[in-house]
Amino acid sequence: MSEAEMPTTRTRVVREPERGAYDRETVYRILDEAFICHVGFCVDGQPFVIPTSYGRKEANLYIHGSAASRMLRQMKEGVQVCITVTLLDGLVLARSVFNHSMNYRSVVILGKATLLDDPEEKLAALRILSEHIIPGRWDDVRQPNERELKATSVLRVPIEEFSAKIRTGPPIDDQEDYLFPVWAGVLPLETKTGNPIDDPALDGAHQVPDYVRTYSRTHLKVF
Amino acid sequence: MSEAEMPTTRTRVVREPERGAYDRETVYRILDEAFICHVGFCVDGQPFVIPTSYGRKEANLYIHGSAASRMLRQMKEGVQVCITVTLLDGLVLARSVFNHSMNYRSVVILGKATLLDDPEEKLAALRILSEHIIPGRWDDVRQPNERELKATSVLRVPIEEFSAKIRTGPPIDDQEDYLFPVWAGVLPLETKTGNPIDDPALDGAHQVPDYVRTYSRTHLKVF
Repeated sequence: MSEAEMPTTRTRVVREPERGAYDRETVYRILDEAFICHVGFCVDGQPFVIPTSYGRKEANLYIHGSAASRMLRQMKEGVQVCITVTLLDGLVLARSVFNHSMNYRSVVILGKATLLDDPEEKLAALRILSEHIIPGRWDDVRQPNERELKATSVLRVPIEEFSAKIRTGPPIDDQEDYLFPVWAGVLPLETKTGNPIDDPALDGAHQVPDYVRTYSRTHLKVF
Repeated sequence: MSEAEMPTTRTRVVREPERGAYDRETVYRILDEAFICHVGFCVDGQPFVIPTSYGRKEANLYIHGSAASRMLRQMKEGVQVCITVTLLDGLVLARSVFNHSMNYRSVVILGKATLLDDPEEKLAALRILSEHIIPGRWDDVRQPNERELKATSVLRVPIEEFSAKIRTGPPIDDQEDYLFPVWAGVLPLETKTGNPIDDPALDGAHQVPDYVRTYSRTHLKVF
């Protein structure tokens, strides 16, 4: 584990420490399966949490800034954020109320979000976002023009201070509860795609592209 | 719209104001369909965002405090939180990169989270949480004992300052893009249950209960 991958006192998992993970591979796998994050920031001690889409390339996370306009207004040199990504995998149904749980994989990243200024960098970041959410779409549609690029804000957050938290497997009950007369186990949850819905304005023109028809993520279970 | 239901300057939807909703019925419908929220709080200007389960009864949200232990350490008279709940309904695939979007329903609640002290109140809140997540389970399993109740913390957040944001429907493209030669529409996303997985320790005893077998939320698409 390199120094950059040591958890800080702020990211070390305190509750259920056995569920903590601090290696980039685990964190990237979770980040790459999801595409919605919840971004937290503080304004005069008041927290705000905004859902928004994101993309990752190497050790940077790019988030769509428009959803965070409230945040952008107060920032010049960047703003401290917490970015949390959660994948829910199932309800864990134990024999006691107390031992009920959920199977999940989550990532928390603490860092400074900065606005991308350079139009080329912004364009590259938007492509990363797009390809993260639905690979193949970018090349198929009209590219951003200058006006649109100006109207779009993109934030970059370096993935430096982070941790993951993961629970898997069956319920864990107290020894004396295993004889309690009730079913126990896991109810899996997974997000699936429905059938693509044509834009009514299409009027039958153009087929659903393969990358839409066969869209899937390893497990699309994004929170 | 009663006074309590007027958005404040902090909860009024600024971006895409036509997507804002401020009535309790809309907000409660979203809160009742989901069961995972992202709780944000600030410690010395640093935001933290933690995923956790919740339940609602009337105008109160109850959240499981254990996931927020970091928050609890610093609170005596309550802590300012932002609770955000997001349901993702689909990818909105437009003819230009710029007009891509998502269909979603989200709720943001700003308020003060306070710890429940009274054991009876705590027990009642845990039941609300449990029934919110999986109705019917509570009566089937071993109830919390005194030690477990003491080890569990539950926070209450009054639903007073809130807003919802909702996007539905097909992509909306610029007029001149409607002739762009590409498919456009919505790729729906929905969270579904898989087959229940027996706890290996069950050893064939006990059937999967009806409330697990037929588990569904109106649309279980929780982020």
